[in-house]
Amino acid sequence: MTADTLRRRVVTANLELVRLGLAVLTFGNASAVDREAGVMAIKPSGVPYHELSEDSIPLVDLAEGTVVAGSRRPSSDTPTHLALYRAFPDVGGIVHTHSPYATAWAQARRGIPCLGTTHADHFRGAVPVTRQLTAAEIAGGYEEATGAVIVELGVDPSAMPAALVASHGPFAWGRNVDEAVENAVALEAVATSAYRALVLRSECAEIDGDLLAKHFDRKHGPGAYYGQPS
Amino acid sequence: MTADTLRRRVVTANLELVRLGLAVLTFGNASAVDREAGVMAIKPSGVPYHELSEDSIPLVDLAEGTVVAGSRRPSSDTPTHLALYRAFPDVGGIVHTHSPYATAWAQARRGIPCLGTTHADHFRGAVPVTRQLTAAEIAGGYEEATGAVIVELGVDPSAMPAALVASHGPFAWGRNVDEAVENAVALEAVATSAYRALVLRSECAEIDGDLLAKHFDRKHGPGAYYGQPS
Amino acid sequence: MTADTLRRRVVTANLELVRLGLAVLTFGNASAVDREAGVMAIKPSGVPYHELSEDSIPLVDLAEGTVVAGSRRPSSDTPTHLALYRAFPDVGGIVHTHSPYATAWAQARRGIPCLGTTHADHFRGAVPVTRQLTAAEIAGGYEEATGAVIVELGVDPSAMPAALVASHGPFAWGRNVDEAVENAVALEAVATSAYRALVLRSECAEIDGDLLAKHFDRKHGPGAYYGQPS
Amino acid sequence: MTADTLRRRVVTANLELVRLGLAVLTFGNASAVDREAGVMAIKPSGVPYHELSEDSIPLVDLAEGTVVAGSRRPSSDTPTHLALYRAFPDVGGIVHTHSPYATAWAQARRGIPCLGTTHADHFRGAVPVTRQLTAAEIAGGYEEATGAVIVELGVDPSAMPAALVASHGPFAWGRNVDEAVENAVALEAVATSAYRALVLRSECAEIDGDLLAKHFDRKHGPGAYYGQPS
Repeated sequence: MTADTLRRRVVTANLELVRLGLAVLTFGNASAVDREAGVMAIKPSGVPYHELSEDSIPLVDLAEGTVVAGSRRPSSDTPTHLALYRAFPDVGGIVHTHSPYATAWAQARRGIPCLGTTHADHFRGAVPVTRQLTAAEIAGGYEEATGAVIVELGVDPSAMPAALVASHGPFAWGRNVDEAVENAVALEAVATSAYRALVLRSECAEIDGDLLAKHFDRKHGPGAYYGQPS
Repeated sequence: MTADTLRRRVVTANLELVRLGLAVLTFGNASAVDREAGVMAIKPSGVPYHELSEDSIPLVDLAEGTVVAGSRRPSSDTPTHLALYRAFPDVGGIVHTHSPYATAWAQARRGIPCLGTTHADHFRGAVPVTRQLTAAEIAGGYEEATGAVIVELGVDPSAMPAALVASHGPFAWGRNVDEAVENAVALEAVATSAYRALVLRSECAEIDGDLLAKHFDRKHGPGAYYGQPS
Repeated sequence: MTADTLRRRVVTANLELVRLGLAVLTFGNASAVDREAGVMAIKPSGVPYHELSEDSIPLVDLAEGTVVAGSRRPSSDTPTHLALYRAFPDVGGIVHTHSPYATAWAQARRGIPCLGTTHADHFRGAVPVTRQLTAAEIAGGYEEATGAVIVELGVDPSAMPAALVASHGPFAWGRNVDEAVENAVALEAVATSAYRALVLRSECAEIDGDLLAKHFDRKHGPGAYYGQPS
Repeated sequence: MTADTLRRRVVTANLELVRLGLAVLTFGNASAVDREAGVMAIKPSGVPYHELSEDSIPLVDLAEGTVVAGSRRPSSDTPTHLALYRAFPDVGGIVHTHSPYATAWAQARRGIPCLGTTHADHFRGAVPVTRQLTAAEIAGGYEEATGAVIVELGVDPSAMPAALVASHGPFAWGRNVDEAVENAVALEAVATSAYRALVLRSECAEIDGDLLAKHFDRKHGPGAYYGQPS
């Protein structure tokens, strides 16, 4: 994959966040990584989505965190993305959104319980929420600490491709940035239906472990039969 | 009806699910049956809606459940559709969606009470919710069991053209697939207004039986006077 | 105003209901009256909005209730519209919608309290809800009785251009059908914000009578200074 | 800046209110000020958004409140805008909307607590709500009094670029009218997520002061590193 391809995918993914209603103004960012080249492409900071072009996408060294190409300053959330890529070696793309329902769960500091099969199709159980950051973490290396509290949750990133940062919002990831966007869409859908289910019945039971495993595994397990043979 | 016509209608109905906001990603599927030919056309599994073409629609033998035409694997929910077509001989089309409000009711494991005349125009009483599947049902023939618990509800499919599968989402049907889509739209509308009515008054009374019968029958009964003479 | 003009306005108003999100499927209808000619133009029953044309709009005699032009059957709600036109001599247009929030209020059988100035700009106080119909009213002349319970509310139609029918949905009116559509839009907006205000504070106080009068009168009163001089 | 430029920006900002879903019908207005020329350009009263043109935008003398150019009557909320421009000398643009969630908070007479970092990115703490107007204030110079109760809140307009008027709706401002629109968008986003967070957890804690300061200051403080170097 050339750097141009990486950047083009990042432009497209960022525009998808807007088109799909997951971000307004400049509230959100998408990145993709090229593991071989050791670089991450990420949205530039504070640039409106409609002004994004491939040239405007900074490339950041995965190990050093330094900008290696591009004249624009990378997203202020860059250290969060880097922390996740370093901890999750199979992840190829990450999106951070402020999609409305997932953000409400993050602000309520509640994980999203698994109440239905669509949830189970994408996330193997409740989507977790981080602990709050300490004053020391906020004062020193705030954005890196944001990544660290996600990693601290100890999830298997292939079975749980999203997490909520308390008082902040959701991060979602995947093997590539398109899959990360898809998981962010699924996260917002399950955040929405779980919210409304709880309004209808304040003590909703989570779905049975058998049903959870069945749905996740028919799509992602060794004998998966959802989708077309690859 | 030729197989091409059947497939074209299924493509159109699946695209309608997206256009009408009843499905995102690949969350939903529509099928139609040709009783004379003994075949069902259904969405292929895991194929994005914008990639659907008539050629991509599998034809499945209604009695045997085997694919008789098309190179793509049919929806993983195919056994659910087949179970419904076998139990409901006058049904010609079925849609499964994850429309947001109907899914919330399904996840709360509550049927949708009949709170208004629009509900009564389409559904003769509360839209029922299935029982949960047992571990044994999940382990063996899960998707067929999903159809079986709908059938177990014992509804008259012409007076109650939809049901909610607990912890899952809605299925709707009709004499043909266009009518099934229409019923799925009506279901989401009544799921939405019933949800909000319950927020406004947690103990909403269902409408009187007289009013329910009046609205259903002025549209569907023997002396129906809604719509144009057929 | 020619009959063609009357019909054209009714086509436009019905299409506006869909465009503005006040109606889905065939859930809603708009009518306009020509007092001099003694006729009402109204949506035909059960015809999809995108199939409406001027020719398809029936003309109904205001006094007799008989169809005087057009080959299509008029809306099944025709007797409701006629009852309102007969009781409200200055009303020139009526719309019946199932706009989502207003319908939820109707289903909860609650009037919409006046919680804000936008409400006061359009409606001089709480939007009322009708009583329920009796079994006898449902059995005999149901649609006419629906109009009668609205009239029974005793509102001044120029100060209160809308009402909710219990377990059913909203009707709105105006000096002409464009104004009726505008009032239906305003009704849905105030139904939405009042719903959410009550979620945030279950015992919201209605606005003071002074503020209510100020807003309604600066737009509609004798010394109105909102809008352009006419 | 010429008067034409000022008017063009006001036309654009008003159209943005509609496009962004912050206003329906004629519910909202945007203004911009030219401090050197001592004039404010503002939406004309009661004119539909799609009929706005540069010529239709009145220019109002900032000190006197008189119309100095344009044949249309200015927004009835003109005295409110003038009161804010006079009290807040660094503000260059103001928008008044009835965006749905912010209006619900205003109608519930509750300020919007700071529950998340997106809120902190734009507003340094809870967005305040005004007291109610007295009968005397409503009777005499109502619109000017509306501005006065906002000013009475005593906010630093650069750190708190919005306020809610009780029983009415939001006002937002900025160094120019584009920034005012952006703040109105951010306000609606945080009003939405705070509403839902409170539904999920009725006693949501506000975010820590450290986190609030970090987010506001990384974007607006002296060492800001969000966005591109200016």
